[in-house]
Formats: sequence, structure tokens, C-alpha cells
Amino acid sequence: MAMTGVLRPGHAQLRVLDLEVSRKFYRDVIGLVETGTDKQGRVYFKCWDERDHHSVVLREADTAGIDFVGYKVLDRATLDQLERDVRAYGLETERVPAGDLLETGERVRFQLPTGHLFELYADKKHVGNGLGQVNPAPWGPDSERGMAPTRLDHCLLYGTNIAANKKLFTEVLGFYLVERILGPKEAGEPEVAIFLACSHKTHDIAFVEYPEPGKLHHLSFRMPTWERVLRAGDIMGMNNVPIDIGPTRHGTTRGETIYAWDPSGNRFETFCGGYDPYPDVEPITWTHDGFGHGLDYPNGKLHESFLTIVT
Amino acid sequence: MAMTGVLRPGHAQLRVLDLEVSRKFYRDVIGLVETGTDKQGRVYFKCWDERDHHSVVLREADTAGIDFVGYKVLDRATLDQLERDVRAYGLETERVPAGDLLETGERVRFQLPTGHLFELYADKKHVGNGLGQVNPAPWGPDSERGMAPTRLDHCLLYGTNIAANKKLFTEVLGFYLVERILGPKEAGEPEVAIFLACSHKTHDIAFVEYPEPGKLHHLSFRMPTWERVLRAGDIMGMNNVPIDIGPTRHGTTRGETIYAWDPSGNRFETFCGGYDPYPDVEPITWTHDGFGHGLDYPNGKLHESFLTIVT
Amino acid sequence: MAMTGVLRPGHAQLRVLDLEVSRKFYRDVIGLVETGTDKQGRVYFKCWDERDHHSVVLREADTAGIDFVGYKVLDRATLDQLERDVRAYGLETERVPAGDLLETGERVRFQLPTGHLFELYADKKHVGNGLGQVNPAPWGPDSERGMAPTRLDHCLLYGTNIAANKKLFTEVLGFYLVERILGPKEAGEPEVAIFLACSHKTHDIAFVEYPEPGKLHHLSFRMPTWERVLRAGDIMGMNNVPIDIGPTRHGTTRGETIYAWDPSGNRFETFCGGYDPYPDVEPITWTHDGFGHGLDYPNGKLHESFLTIVT
Amino acid sequence: MAMTGVLRPGHAQLRVLDLEVSRKFYRDVIGLVETGTDKQGRVYFKCWDERDHHSVVLREADTAGIDFVGYKVLDRATLDQLERDVRAYGLETERVPAGDLLETGERVRFQLPTGHLFELYADKKHVGNGLGQVNPAPWGPDSERGMAPTRLDHCLLYGTNIAANKKLFTEVLGFYLVERILGPKEAGEPEVAIFLACSHKTHDIAFVEYPEPGKLHHLSFRMPTWERVLRAGDIMGMNNVPIDIGPTRHGTTRGETIYAWDPSGNRFETFCGGYDPYPDVEPITWTHDGFGHGLDYPNGKLHESFLTIVT
Repeated sequence: MAMTGVLRPGHAQLRVLDLEVSRKFYRDVIGLVETGTDKQGRVYFKCWDERDHHSVVLREADTAGIDFVGYKVLDRATLDQLERDVRAYGLETERVPAGDLLETGERVRFQLPTGHLFELYADKKHVGNGLGQVNPAPWGPDSERGMAPTRLDHCLLYGTNIAANKKLFTEVLGFYLVERILGPKEAGEPEVAIFLACSHKTHDIAFVEYPEPGKLHHLSFRMPTWERVLRAGDIMGMNNVPIDIGPTRHGTTRGETIYAWDPSGNRFETFCGGYDPYPDVEPITWTHDGFGHGLDYPNGKLHESFLTIVT
Repeated sequence: MAMTGVLRPGHAQLRVLDLEVSRKFYRDVIGLVETGTDKQGRVYFKCWDERDHHSVVLREADTAGIDFVGYKVLDRATLDQLERDVRAYGLETERVPAGDLLETGERVRFQLPTGHLFELYADKKHVGNGLGQVNPAPWGPDSERGMAPTRLDHCLLYGTNIAANKKLFTEVLGFYLVERILGPKEAGEPEVAIFLACSHKTHDIAFVEYPEPGKLHHLSFRMPTWERVLRAGDIMGMNNVPIDIGPTRHGTTRGETIYAWDPSGNRFETFCGGYDPYPDVEPITWTHDGFGHGLDYPNGKLHESFLTIVT
Repeated sequence: MAMTGVLRPGHAQLRVLDLEVSRKFYRDVIGLVETGTDKQGRVYFKCWDERDHHSVVLREADTAGIDFVGYKVLDRATLDQLERDVRAYGLETERVPAGDLLETGERVRFQLPTGHLFELYADKKHVGNGLGQVNPAPWGPDSERGMAPTRLDHCLLYGTNIAANKKLFTEVLGFYLVERILGPKEAGEPEVAIFLACSHKTHDIAFVEYPEPGKLHHLSFRMPTWERVLRAGDIMGMNNVPIDIGPTRHGTTRGETIYAWDPSGNRFETFCGGYDPYPDVEPITWTHDGFGHGLDYPNGKLHESFLTIVT
Repeated sequence: MAMTGVLRPGHAQLRVLDLEVSRKFYRDVIGLVETGTDKQGRVYFKCWDERDHHSVVLREADTAGIDFVGYKVLDRATLDQLERDVRAYGLETERVPAGDLLETGERVRFQLPTGHLFELYADKKHVGNGLGQVNPAPWGPDSERGMAPTRLDHCLLYGTNIAANKKLFTEVLGFYLVERILGPKEAGEPEVAIFLACSHKTHDIAFVEYPEPGKLHHLSFRMPTWERVLRAGDIMGMNNVPIDIGPTRHGTTRGETIYAWDPSGNRFETFCGGYDPYPDVEPITWTHDGFGHGLDYPNGKLHESFLTIVT
């Protein structure tokens, strides 16, 4: 395989304050497809064009935030090898047994230097996208129910010591750096944000340096077009979903975006566009002064809430 | 003719602080087509898909703002009749001689109750849109130079006593009310903004109640698609054009929009979409509480700058 | 009023071969809103964003085709005046009583030189677009059910002696010529097609010269965007709706289009775009040799079926 | 690296009948960026958003067609390993020396079972996309010159014995099957077309079974949006570029498309959309009866020219 190792973001488990309110929001407003509830009461969702059993898991809790993110790897041999590599690198790993998440095989879990729980897994049940495998229509009813993102695109996590994450992801996990944002000149222009890909997307995961570990900035959902981003914005308006930024274009990654908050205060993004980097690409750098355009290209301004509010 | 009387916005004369800076901005950034300079030094522009000689005139002055707006009427008989009607209504009118504006016939000018100078005219030279009248291509180079709006769509003016304007426009000038915004309940829900059409657009002109007379809120330029609105936003970013709001969708008029400022501080809009009202339509009302969504449908919030900054 | 006389296409009555099949097609595939059935068994529909009771009426018959088209005029005084004008012009008129069509006032009916029954009317019940008149959302469920056109845009009729229609529409009914297509040079370049507007659309009605009178080429439905035209095409594919041409762009009118056939063989169009002509516009001419691009701008070719199949 | 082995289509060398006519066509009409001419007189182009020196090479010849295609691999070690793997698989390979193509390192070349010359290479000069690596704008002048595709997306080749190609690509070169088209039932439903990816695109290369070896069906260029596909179609119309199919949507790969011919008769595609498969995806199958929708989803019909004309 030319695509080996870590393939893509596979799931994220979010903490939500009221499960029923959140279930309705993710199902009816964001428009995910509900695929199950487990014994612990966690509710499972997938985006309509994803073929695996789930990508978003909601767990009721007293505080919002993210429990863990999981990335799908090519196969079990890859899982075993990556586990060995991560251990050899010096991190402890844990095996979460198959079935802990519905329809999901064993997961290898470890804590990132930024404090986040990160998982790798090789097996999750294929349930299809509802269009079938023979002469499929290009879309169906689920692709117009709510905002109806096509897939979980990436997550952006805030935490301590992203330099250590960068080393781990690029040296052990097979990711490469696509873009980065620098801090102020007077601080020596440290990397304050890094966008990493294991594929040819502009990011499969991104990290921002932050004084507290383990924080969620946002989960990003893929939209097919800029017109569908506006439609998502309309649905936010119809449902009084609080918006952080957008609709607008990012300079960073070139994507089109809206950031908004779920009922628990977890930020999510409806994202489309971007470009196609490959591992041989020279990374793009955003300077501290230039990042206003990096965040919001037309407006060219920093949004305080974007930089400071996390769960 | 089924379209009679006042046809459309035909021109607006803007005051700009530095003519050369503004000329470059309207020509290269907004992407209008420069069509002439007169003896007074005023610079003339048209949008690429307009067929008359000009729609925007820049005049250098010490303060920004709008000198006058002019609307094209069907023919000279209409012009004479409307002049008589306006006088009969009790307003004084003045004839500005043909040639005062380049390639433009006599204009009938009068002052609106809101303090704005308003003009009607029947003649302006057809110069075409550059595509010819025989087997034309759907677009050409001018339609991709700068933001490249297709036409001057409408203007929004702030001034005193919009109720009197409404009466004049609907009873004398042949406009009809398409949408309106109400003030707070505790103030008795007065009409604080009115959107008036002489065509089947959502507005050919709009007024907002304001303590000072004769103010410009914005001149609006028509964009063909939401994708072209984003492209306009990208060009704003490339040129550090300060944006007030957008890209986003209006609830009011349903259009898609960005508001930004020219180098003199005159606000302009890149606008597309909307719907097709007709004179038999029942007007839409936005309540004071609902106008957050009227202004910015996804965000549902009032923008202080939009409500208070005028030239 | 600046918009006076004839305002817009208001309704068309189509003959369909199987009423139930057609009802399902217009409701579920095209996505119109069903608004009633009358004693004769005719079924009534409106497009979601139309505010009047209906725009499409289906009547079961042995042959497909169009019974009549009706255009809304400003008010009853206009209706009376236009009736007098048409009679003075030398055509007989008939009054169809109020209530013959559901929720519709008296209609003035006459036969066009091309053999089509044409109606004018001033009254039809406002039923709204389902979004309400106070703080409306920009769209709702009906705008995504089936192809979901926003309104009946125009019709194209084939018949004898379009020159006489042109005279009637421009001299009596207040329309103006926007574009025209010429026949071959060797035939002296007669006008073989004319596009007429009573508004500032590229056409409210169009005629093509044809040896048989009273034929329907197509009824055109307005789509908001090119992306929605593709979505309409997808729905045609999902439902095996036979397509004549498209998706593509017209050179003539500059609009984007798909032509397809309903289950009875009546052609319809899903149309968007175009430009904004006004009565003072100089008409555009398509030569016989240039009309390949007029019909299908990218392909630049004539489609035999388009030129010859009518109902 | 998670992306290893073969990364992406890197170049294709086309035979053209008149070099100057073709140079103008690829530069001004398709809108590629010309990057050089070598001693043999070959002309080099890249798409604006590609960062390597070239992706299309034109060679003047007496017959149209494709000389070879080259795919970029991760690095030199990968190149050496893949060379060994291909030899071990039983194919002869040849090393084309560095510098044979401008700014390109050594290429490993071998003949596919379908008769095409296929190359792998690890080194080509990075020249950037013209936007810079620090605070880049999202696009620039080259992205609106001509059709302006963003990159070479894939190629579709016709030849003998695609089953052997499938084996080679999936067992040796690290590709996986994304979609496939079957022949008629009476012929036992053989695979007559296969769509293969080395990434998470719907195809990096595709093959169709054909009685003659080494044929080119089309080279595909990536467009960012459906609106830009229409714009490409408009440019085809303006330049009388003969179109084979489109604009339309493919059922197969779900992409949006126009197929047209360059002045030598080489077919090319302007393509956007699609979805994101991964190596763990279950392939989609199009039956012989269903392939009308696979080729042209709205129309649901086979186009004879598409199936039979190759160079």
C-alpha cells in the first residue's frame, strides 16, 4: 500500500452536559447519522458519507471537552508495529479491548505530550454510506438532513508542549508538517500552531500551544462546497447556534469555514476546500503578524474568542 | 411598457479624500471599468455588465460621503411627468443641464426628506458591456478584473424622517415596500428601516432612520454568485480592505454579502442572491428582536459598526 | 408603480396523460407544492417561493401540451385597460369567470397569432411561501424537496407567425425584445425566435417560429444556483427522467440550464442565472451560424431534439 | 510516513501535431504555466497549484497520443525498492537518466501489460505555486488565466489486458481498487474498467479494456469547484474547443466533469468533486446496464464517442 500506517481520523469521544439535548443537536442540527447506544449510555454517530460504524461518540459528563481521539490504521500488523514504535519512543501504551466502543476492535491508547488521549485502531465495522456498493446514486436523504457533513475531517487540540507532539507525530506516527504559525518576533518566533497530515489533506490533526493540557479547540466536519457551508450557517441561524467565526475563508489551509459551538460549549467547524499537500511538500509558515489573514483571510483579523476559548 | 417610471439605480457620486488612491481602488480592487474624467476632475466608472456610460462618479473632497444618487427613468416623457408629480407633491426640483455628467442628459434633482439629493434622468449614452450585441460570449476579461461586480444594485442611505421618504417613494415615484425593520417595542415599533423597489429586486433603494440628514451607509454592487462573494472577500484580504461584516447571508432580503470600506471610509457592499418580489407582494417585517438574524442570518447578531458608522 | 401592466408569468395549464403519475412527478420529483384539486379533477401546484396559490395546473388529457398560460397584471384597472387595448388591436377576448381556476379572479383570455391561448388576470389568493412575513428564515423544508425550483420563470412556445406575436407583445402588452435568433442568410435572416420581457428578466415569454400553431416547447422553472441545477440533474438521474440538453450554459440569455421531459413528454427546464435587461436595452442578436453557442455555449452545437420536439 | 510508495501522478508526455498551436492551447486556453523547453524542443507545463517543475510535457509528432506517464514516489529508497519489486514481479525496467526531463531525477520506466510506458521517479525540482511559503494568498493571477486547473489529477488509459495491470498496481505498486465497471452479463461480467488510487482520491489512474495497447483516453485536470467547471466550459465555447461530454456529473467517482479534445485530438478532462476513499474501502461496482448513469449521472446514457475515440 502507498497509504500505510495511520490513515485518517476515525473517532472522537466528546463530553456533553445533557445527552438528550446533544443527541438531538448532533443528529438533527449537525445532521449526523445515529448508529447506536452502548451500555454506558454513550451515543454513536457517523457522517453520512463515512462507511465505518461511527466517528463521533457522545458521553454525558459534568464538563465539556474531549475524552480521546482515535485514528484508523491500515491493518492489525500496522497497529502492532505502531504500538511497538510508540513504546520504543518512550511512551506507555494501553490496549483498550475490542467492543469497548461499539463495533470497534482493540485500540492502542497513549497520552500525547500535550496531555490528550490518542488512540490507534485497525478494525471498525463497515456499515456503508447508505447508497450501496452497486450503481450508487451520488447522494441521498441523509446528505440533506441538517448540515450533513460528509466526514470527520480533523481536530484541533490545545495543550502544552506541541513541539513534543510534532516530534512524535512526524518521527513515529508518520505524519508530516503542512503549515505552522509562529509566535511574536520578540518571543523568538516559536511554533505556536502546527498542522499535520498523514494523508494529502491540509490537516488530519492540528495542535496549538496552550498553558493547559488536554484541551479541545474544535472538531472539524467536512462540507462538500462553499454553498453548503452557507447552508450550514443558515441552519445555525435557524437553530440559534452560537457562531464563533464565519462564514469565511482561512488563509491557513485555504479552507472555507464556520466555527460554532454545540450546546455544551464544544466548538465544531464546518469546513471545505483547502488544497492537496503531499509528504514532499515544503511547509507553509504564517508569521505572528500575518496570522490575522491566516485565520480569517478576508477580514485579516484575529478573533479573541478563537484564541482563548477551549473545552 | 410594463416597466415604466423609474427603472433602476443609474449613478451615485461619491466624495473621496484622495482621487488617485480612490481611482486605483475602484478600478483595480473593486474592478470597475473606468470610462472618463470630466473638466472638474471627476472620474467615471461603470460595472462591467452595465451598458450605460457610468454608474459611479468619484469627486475629490475634504469629507467622504455621497453627493447624490440618480435613477434612470424610462424616457423623457416620464422624466417630465415625474418632475411634475414631485412638484405637485410639494418638493422643489431643479434641472441639471445635459452634459454636466459626461454622456448624460438633463437630470431632475430634488432633495429627499432625509436630506439626500436625488436625481432622475432619461438619457445616458449606451456604451455596451464589451461583449457586443451579436453572438456575445457570456463574460470577458473585465468580469474577472478585481471583484468585478456586474452592476450597481442599490444604495442604503441614513437620514432623518424616513417615513416621509416612504410616502414620497411609494406615492409619487412608483416604488413599493419590500421589507422593513421595526424599532423596539417600548418605542412603539416604529419603522426604522425600509427597503423599497421600483423593479422586482429586493431593493433599489433603502433608508434607515438616523439623527443626521444626508448620510451614506453603503453603495451596493451586484455579484453573480456566493462563490464570487468569497472571491471578493479574498481580494479584500489581499488588499487589506477593512471589512465591516461578512461574508454572510442577510435574513433581510435573503442576499449574500460582504460590507467593507473604501479608502475614504465610504462603505460598499458586494451582494448577491435575494429573491424576486413584485408590487403585489406583502412586505416582510423584521422585529427589533429579530433583526440580529435580519442583518447576519447565521450569526444572528447586531454589529455595532453597521448601525452607527456612516459617511 | 414603476412596474405596471403585466407583471409576470402566473400560471400554465398542462395536459398530462396520466394524472396520478404526473402529480407524483411534479410534486415529488420536480418538488412543487401541491395546493389543491378542483371539481374537474385538475391538480394545482406552486413553486415553494411563489406566494400566490398556484402556478402549474395539470389536466388529464389524451395528448400532452399546454392549454393556456396566464400572466398576472398589476390590478383590475390594468386588466380592464389591457382588455380594451387587446380588443382595440383587433383580437377577440373572453372573460373566464372568477373561480374557474381555484382561488383566482376573472381572467381575460385571447388567442395569440401563434395559436396559443393567453390569459391575463389581476387576482389570485396570496398563500405565502411557508416562511411567514415576520423574521422569515431564508428557506425551509419545501426548498429541498425534489428539485425545488423557486418559481415559474417563463415559457417557450412554438407556433406560426411569431412576428405578429412580437407586434402584439411589444405594442400592446408592454413587453420588450431582449434577444432574438435569426434564420439562415439564404432565407434573409428572418427572426426565428424572440425572447420578450415585461420585467428585468431575460425572458418572461419566448416564441419560436414553427409550422404548427399552439405548441409548447417548455415551461421553465427557476433554480437559485448552478449547484442546484446539478442537484436537479442528479434527481433526474435518480428518477430516470429523460434529459434533452444539459446541464450547460445558454449563450442566449446567459442562463444555466437542463431541459428534460415530464412523464407525458412535456419539456421543462431547470434554469438559473441570466442577466438584468431593462426596456432601454439594445437587443442581442444570435445569427443562424452562431446559435449553436446560443443554445449550448460550451458545446456550440445545435441539438436536433431541441429544435423539433414539441407538445 | 503514512503516505509511502507512489504518491501521485507527476507527469505525462503527450504527442501533439503542431507544437506552437498546442503550446498556445495548453498555456492560454487550458491555462497551464509554461516552465521550460528542452533541447529536443519539448515544452513543459505545470498547473498553477502544483509545486514541482512540470506535469505536462508536449512533444511534436506525427500522431497524437501519450508517450509515457510518470508517478512521483516518496524518495530514492522507495524508487529503488519499487524497481526491485517490479523486476521481481517479472517486468523489465529501464533507468532514464536524470536531466532527460528538465529538472527531474532518474526515472524507472517499464511497460505495463496494457502497453503503456509507465515511470516512477523520486526527484523533481520544487518551483512553488507562485504564492510563496510565508503568509500566502489563497490564489493569484495564474489561477484565473484560462481554465486554470489546480493540478494533474489522473489519467485514463485504454489497452489490452487490464486484469494484468490491476494485479501489478495492487500487488506491486501499492494501489487499491476504488471502483470498477463490468461488461455485459452475457459476457460473464468481466471487469472492463478499473479505477485505482495510491492516495485517498477516487482515482490516480484508471484503465479500460481495449483491443489496442498503449492508448490514451484522457488526461484529467483538477478544478476547484463546479462553478469553475462551467467557467472551463465557457472558455471551451469561446475557443471552439470540441467537447465530448459535459458539463455533467459522473456517477462513477461522483465527480463533476467536462471532456474535450486538444487541437491534436488528445482528450482531456476538467474534473472536480468526487469523494475520499481509503485503502480499506469496499470497491464500488457499476454494472453494464448501470454504467449509463456511471458515465453521465443526470443523462444516464452511454456516449459512443467516449467509449471508442482514443489517441
